[in-house]
Parts: sequence; structure tokens; C-alpha cells
Amino acid sequence: MAAREPRDMAWNGWGDPAAAAPLPDAVTGLLRDLLGVRPSPTPQVALERVEVRDVRLGDDDVAALAAAVGGGHVRTDAEARIRHTRGKSTPDLLRIRAGETADAPDAVVLPGSHDEVLEVLRVCSERRIAVVPFGGGTSVVGGLTPDGEGFTGVIALDLRRMDALVAVDPVSRTATLQPGLRGPRAEALLAEHGFTLGHFPQSYEWATIGGFAAARSSGQASAGYGRFDEMVVGLTVATPRGTLETGRAPRSAAGPDLRQLVLGSEGAFGVITSVTVRVQPVPKTTSYEGWRFASFGEGSAALRRLAQGGSLPAVLRLSDETETAIGLAKPDRIGDGSASGCLAIVGYEGEAADAAERKARIRLALREAGGELLGSEPGEGWEHGRFNAPYLRDALLDVGALVETLETATFWSAVPALYEAVREALTTTLNDEGTPPVVMCHISHVYATGASLYFTVVSAQGEDAVAHWRRAKDAACDAIIAAGGTISHHHGVGTDHRSWYATEIGPLGVDVLRAVKESLDPAGVLNPGVLLTPQR
Amino acid sequence: MAAREPRDMAWNGWGDPAAAAPLPDAVTGLLRDLLGVRPSPTPQVALERVEVRDVRLGDDDVAALAAAVGGGHVRTDAEARIRHTRGKSTPDLLRIRAGETADAPDAVVLPGSHDEVLEVLRVCSERRIAVVPFGGGTSVVGGLTPDGEGFTGVIALDLRRMDALVAVDPVSRTATLQPGLRGPRAEALLAEHGFTLGHFPQSYEWATIGGFAAARSSGQASAGYGRFDEMVVGLTVATPRGTLETGRAPRSAAGPDLRQLVLGSEGAFGVITSVTVRVQPVPKTTSYEGWRFASFGEGSAALRRLAQGGSLPAVLRLSDETETAIGLAKPDRIGDGSASGCLAIVGYEGEAADAAERKARIRLALREAGGELLGSEPGEGWEHGRFNAPYLRDALLDVGALVETLETATFWSAVPALYEAVREALTTTLNDEGTPPVVMCHISHVYATGASLYFTVVSAQGEDAVAHWRRAKDAACDAIIAAGGTISHHHGVGTDHRSWYATEIGPLGVDVLRAVKESLDPAGVLNPGVLLTPQR
Repeated sequence: MAAREPRDMAWNGWGDPAAAAPLPDAVTGLLRDLLGVRPSPTPQVALERVEVRDVRLGDDDVAALAAAVGGGHVRTDAEARIRHTRGKSTPDLLRIRAGETADAPDAVVLPGSHDEVLEVLRVCSERRIAVVPFGGGTSVVGGLTPDGEGFTGVIALDLRRMDALVAVDPVSRTATLQPGLRGPRAEALLAEHGFTLGHFPQSYEWATIGGFAAARSSGQASAGYGRFDEMVVGLTVATPRGTLETGRAPRSAAGPDLRQLVLGSEGAFGVITSVTVRVQPVPKTTSYEGWRFASFGEGSAALRRLAQGGSLPAVLRLSDETETAIGLAKPDRIGDGSASGCLAIVGYEGEAADAAERKARIRLALREAGGELLGSEPGEGWEHGRFNAPYLRDALLDVGALVETLETATFWSAVPALYEAVREALTTTLNDEGTPPVVMCHISHVYATGASLYFTVVSAQGEDAVAHWRRAKDAACDAIIAAGGTISHHHGVGTDHRSWYATEIGPLGVDVLRAVKESLDPAGVLNPGVLLTPQR
Repeated sequence: MAAREPRDMAWNGWGDPAAAAPLPDAVTGLLRDLLGVRPSPTPQVALERVEVRDVRLGDDDVAALAAAVGGGHVRTDAEARIRHTRGKSTPDLLRIRAGETADAPDAVVLPGSHDEVLEVLRVCSERRIAVVPFGGGTSVVGGLTPDGEGFTGVIALDLRRMDALVAVDPVSRTATLQPGLRGPRAEALLAEHGFTLGHFPQSYEWATIGGFAAARSSGQASAGYGRFDEMVVGLTVATPRGTLETGRAPRSAAGPDLRQLVLGSEGAFGVITSVTVRVQPVPKTTSYEGWRFASFGEGSAALRRLAQGGSLPAVLRLSDETETAIGLAKPDRIGDGSASGCLAIVGYEGEAADAAERKARIRLALREAGGELLGSEPGEGWEHGRFNAPYLRDALLDVGALVETLETATFWSAVPALYEAVREALTTTLNDEGTPPVVMCHISHVYATGASLYFTVVSAQGEDAVAHWRRAKDAACDAIIAAGGTISHHHGVGTDHRSWYATEIGPLGVDVLRAVKESLDPAGVLNPGVLLTPQR
């Protein structure tokens, strides 16, 4: 097998394999006693023993791709193909752990420039080869699981070679980044100029700039820095029909905002080859603290007050009673009952004077809203573990638990009903399956008019863990749509959410997107089945 | 002729005919002496003497429209048709003042509900009747001047009957408004609930909620309240193919943001029949003050500092040296040389304590950036006359001057070059025409990454004032695109900016919009020629 790229992600789990850590025995015991979690009877398959089907592409296909990107940048070896099989949802992990690689691409193609991407798209359109744009590979909604039916083959278009900081404009405070830059590398390059993007989703360490844009990402500091779609001021997109460039000004009244049509297009309209983003000075100070509220309702009202008052900290999140009691961020304390009420994490960043002034205003508002300051320890604990939850998921899967997350958003007045509806759907379905779950929730992002809800579910895996979760997830998605929420606040649509998405935007919305896709991708090779059901 | 609707706008000028005021004689003298402005040889035509061509629609067409909206709501009388002829750009006014009504619609149709709009669109698609959605009629970019070629006729779809506040959600701070509500009426209805939209473009007194959305409007208090496109959280759109509803959450990662595809679509994709907007409490205090900066560059840097520091007032604008010296807001002082440097207007709104704290922060930043506080008089003067500039234009046209505005936006680092390029284009062209102009400019809207530039031009009219201005405007538009600016920051595309817009978004951008239009409006009846060149 070919040598691994440096810092390749675990092929069958999250992140850096060296960073994985087993669960404390006490937690394993609790999961067994409380949820009936038993070790999975199917041991994990070793990478060397995983099989992939024969490459369906012909030698002439591979030669044409190699002519586009250079021979060394088309890989058809098993390891490369396995490492580009699907994303990182729990069903994705369960299937790849079992050695199931039905969705493996036939080849991995690594372009080095916008023009090479254009040429790959031309070749693939001509030869009817499906193209899966691949950034960090961190999709949790089936965004890397195309419907390859009717195509000659499927390639993963891995953008890791396009990882430059192209330009910084310190006056306008913008930077132009290539799509294959991972979060930490982008931050390191910007920091050389004194800037930060301030975008820290949980996938930050592995996900890429292009992926943030394509999936309409939202980071943990969105209260202070905004969502990724709010940071983007310009995009260059390679499509089978040529180049689309958008963004000549911060804002414009010249027609619809085409940037907002590309953002969230999840590779179905084109491949984002350049992203110009708003940047901000690296904050001089950062501090995080915990607050306790008596209930999720009281805490929600406090967050709403901050969002509507216009004084938001950089980080703002609120766990419900269950999530607070369990304290997933500190697995060694799970179940010790040290937490009561609802924990909020509040983070301040910026110039020292500004941050202090802002902190004073926000603390006053939180106190008036019933909050009790817990000091910096819970905030720093959260900060320390902010990117670790996916590792914890691996450890839980290792001991036979089923664990997954899902999320939505709605307007403030609808938040309580949406919260109850999703909890109820998950709890009822998993109870009926004979695997009573723990359902936790937090508000992860707030706006003046509403908020997102992020749910984490843990239960036993049941006989067929993938099908088991599918039933619970379907019920939750039905509940989200029935309660008026959006099917995703920041994970995206992918293939997993496609049918609810169609309900959310309605038949005319689907037609509009289909028309856009057909105009840019007449052969339909770009991520078929993502966002929209393919038409045959 | 039919009786006028109450508060109809002047048919051949701006706003309320009773509010028109002639220029002071001294100003007329200055215009004559400095710019060679002479009274126009063509006296204005009286409304009663204006002729319109015969209605092209057949009796069956009118009957079908009457069946959709009720017989009393289809008007084919000359006055109604004249009052719905084009918008309020200077060329529009020059042509209608001369009695030129070639673009008059054949009928004015006034639907009372979303379903009636759907039915009108069905009838018009079937009968190939072009439809011009008509809100306040305040377009200054030819947005109400469709290309009727190949159609049976043209109707203006006047939405004034759809003028209700549908719902207020005080928890989420949103309100749902019908499209025909004019700005002041919308504010009055919201004020009954303690809320304001905070959207005050210069057209505020006449323009409508639907128009704000369709044209991607931006108001004078955009620094504090945001652009209209940022206020919109949901839209309902009637199209020839049915209803499109968008906006289930403040923000979503469920695909592209379809709201941002409707916003700025200028009636070419559908008729906006409902707009849900973010609202805010009516501010307890408002105050406006003037600041002087030594130069436009110094003032721009000060505004940039505020925008990038994140402490913005509600209103923030900066006139260049010429605009400051002339002081258009006070025509009785024009040319008295009382102003030097560059005048900025800064407005504070909000809760008393918050506003005071914010004011202190902003004043400190402006002082550090070289600003000199001029006190409240210039700010209050601006506030008093903030909606009056279009009346002044009427008075200037009356005495034979040519006066028009145009605007653009770009990133901060490109602002100086864009400013110079547009000034140069206007000055050179009008000098070459033998009518040396005065070119004034102000920054009207600021963002962290850039700003808008709003130009006002005054000169003599020349022999053919419309053609004369067209040459100057073309040169300015060429300069905007060459300098990398957007062809419009808040006026829109309409028919006037169409060719530059096509350059701005490129052929693929045009194809995408064409595909969207064809999917929603297969017969192409909606505002043909607006945004996109019709295909025949």
C-alpha cells in the first residue's frame, strides 16, 4: 500500500489515531448498568484486511485524469480509496469499522490548481464519472456518499494540495484562501499577518476552508465572529461549464447574492477553489467562564436577552439539565452528580479594554437573567476539550454504545416545542427498540430571532446498529420538520437529510436548485445524490 | 379620469405634490453663473394633456384579470396608466415631464391576496401578458420599464391593497408584513407593538416592504439596524408555477440560502407577497451629531475604524469635500463657503444607558481618528431633511439643471481608486459634452470589509438631457466595473444596469439566474428585461 500522507485522519474513526483514548472503566460500567450497553460482538476489521471492489474506471479514464493533474496525483490503491470512503457520521464509522466499503471511490484525484479542477470536471463530464469534492472528509450527513448509479465510476476530488494563503488585504481585513487548507493551518498562516478567522467548529482540526464554505459551517465562536457564510465575501467556483466568480463588494444590490447560492451547495454545483473571507485581529485576550441557570428555559431566556440586546460574547452555549448532569466534556466525572441546573459557557475575546467592558455588560445581563457565575474552571474545561467530543464518540463506539448527534434551529418562540418534540421522538423510538437512550441537548448558536439546538444521543447499539439509529434519526427528522425547524443548522443536507430538505424548501425550491445544478453541471457528475435526489 | 388614490405620488416628480418647493433665487443664480444652467425650453406637459397609446389587451384579457382580482381592481384609464409609467430616475422624470409615455402599462391590476397574485400570474402566463410588480414606484434604475416586445400587453401589478401587518412575534422579535405596506405605515403598525424595523432609505416615505425586499434595499440607519436583506428571515413568493416559501430559522445549513436568491430578484422570479422581518424595540433615545474631518481620506479611515472595531452608531455617513462645501441638505446656504473639510453625520439610537455608553466609545474613536465634534446642529439638520433630496431634485430640474445620483461599493483598500475613477469618468464626460458638472460623493454605508460610495452630479442639461446623462452614466458604470466595484450597492439593477451587471456576475452567473427564472416563470412574463436581457 502507498505511504500514508502525514496527518491522515484515522481511517475508521476520528482525527489523529495517536490521540484516541479509551473510556474510564467506571463509565463503561455505568453505560452497562444504566443503558444496557454491551461490547459489540463484531470486532473491528484491520485496515489491511478491508476489501474494496475493483476499480471501475478504464485505463483511458485514469490516463485522462492523470493528464489533468499529473500522474502522481491519481491514486487507485486500496488504502487511498478506503480513506476516502464516506465521512464521519456514526453510521459511516459503524460501516467502515465493519470493513464495509461499498461507497469507496474508484480513484482519488488530487488537483493542484483551479485550472486542474476545471480540467478534471471537463474530463469527468465527458466520461460520465461522478465527482465527490473532498476536503477534510468530516461530513456527518452523508455528504461524501454519492449515488454513483449510471456513472462510469466515482472519484474523490481531494483538494489537500490546494492549501495556500493566496492574499491578505490588511486594510479591508480580508484574506483569500485555497479550499484545501485545514482550520489550524489556515489560522497559522493568518496569524503571521496578525489575523484570525475566528471559525472553530468541532471539526476545526480536520475540516477545510472549502468544506466550511460548501457546507455552510458554523463555529463555536459564532456569537462573536459570525457563521462562516457571514465571513465569506468572495468565492471562485470551478464548474463543468467554466468558472463562476462572486463577490465584488461586502454587500451589493446587484441582483440576488450568488455567494449565498454557492454556500451550502455541498459540491453539487461546483468545486470551490478560492474563498475570500473577512478576518479579524488575533484577540489580545481570551477568557471562558461557566454560568449556572436553574433551568433550560431560564438559561434560554438569558441567551435570548444577550442576542437581542446586541451584546454577545465570542462563545455562548447552554446545556440542558441532562447534558449538564452528565458533563460529557469530563468523562471521568460522568454520573457523579456534581452538576445541577443548566451550565452555560461564556467566552470573551478581543482587545483587553473592549473585552473587559463587554464582559462587564454581559455579566450584568446574565446576573439579571438569573445566572450564577461559576468562575473560570468550567469555561476552561470546555475550552480544553472543545474539539474532543468526536474522540469520545470513538471510545463509546469501542465499548458497544451507540452515540450520535443531530441539530436544528428555529425562532425563539418555537424553541421549547422543538426541543420537546425532538427529545420525545428520540426517546420514544429508542425505548420502543428496547434500548432506552440518554438524550442531551445544548443551544450552540444564538441569533436575535432564534437559536440552534444540538442533540447528543447515547444508547445501546441494538442488533443492527445502523438500522437502529436510522429509525431514531428518521423520527427525529420528522419531528424537526413537523415542529417547523430547519433540518440542519450547521451539519448540512448531504444524502442523509435529502428527503426532509425537499419538504423544507418545497417542490418549487427543489426545482430551482435543480435548474441551477443543470445550468452548471449539465452531465450531473457533481456529487450526485447530495442535496437533491438524482433524476433518471 | 378616475379619482386619485389618497396620497398618490406626484405623477411627474417625487413624493407629495404639496411638499414641492422652488429653489431659492440665489441658488438658481449660482447654477446659472457656475454651471451654465438655463431654464429648459420645453415646458412641462399637464397631466390632462398627456397621451397614452391604446390599450393592447383584449376585452377577454381584461375580463380574465378582473375575474382574478375583482372588476373594480383592474384599471385601464389613462391616469392610472400614466401614474404607473416607469420609476423615479432623472431620465424617467425628464421623459414623463415631456409627456412621453411609451412605457405605460396597458392596465393596472390591484390584487388583494397571495392567491389573487397567483391567479393573475397564471392568467398572464397563459395569455403572454408581461407583469411589472409595482410597490412604491420609486425605482431609479429602470426597474419598472419592462421590455414588452413579444407580449400581448403589459400590466402593472400594484400591491397597495396588500398592506397589512400579518403577525408579530414579540418573543422572537419578528413581524410578518404584506408587500404593499409603505415605510411609514409599516413603522406605525409596528410601533403599536413597541417595535421598529429601523429601515429608512431615502425612498422610505413612498417605497414598500415588497420593494425593499425585491430590490435589496439599504437604509440610512444600516450601520445600526443592518441592510434590509439582513432583516429578512422569511419570504413568501407567488410565481407562475406556484408558491415558494423560504425561511424556517434565522440561519440554516440546509442548502443554499434561497432567501438570498429572492432578495434582489426585482420581480423577475416572482411576486413577494409576504415578508417576515427581524424587528427591534422602538429606540428610547435618538440623537444625531456632526463631525468634521480634514479630508475624505481621513474621514474614511475613521469610519473604517468604527466598522472594524465593531462599535457602530445607528447612522454613519461621510461627505467628501465638495458635498460638504455645497451642503445640499441646506440649499439656502449653497455656496456660502461655511463648510470646510468633510462632514460626517453620526446618529445614536437605543436604550438611554446603552446609547450613552456607545456614544462615548464612538466619540473617543472618532476623536482619536482626527475628528472634530461639531455638535448636534449639523446632525439635526441632516435628520430634518433626510428624505428631502428627491424634492430638491425636482426643483433643480425645474430650473433646467441636470441632477442625478448613482452608487457603488467595494472593499476598503479599493475605495480611493473607485472614488477617483467615478469622479473622473463623470467629470470628463460632462466636460466633453460642454456642461461641466459638480460631482459630490458620500460614504453612505459601511462594513468591516468595505463601504459604499454615493455620487450626486449636477450640471446643465445639454440639448437632449436624457442622452446627455446616458453618456455620463455609461462612463461612470464602465469606471465602476473597471475599478472592481459592484454596479449597485442599493439601487439595484433594473434595466439600466443590466449590461454591467452581466459583466459583474459573468456569463455563468447570468446562466444561473436565467435557469432560476425559467424554472419559476417558464413563459417569461415577470418583469421581462429587468436583471436579465430577454432571450428571444
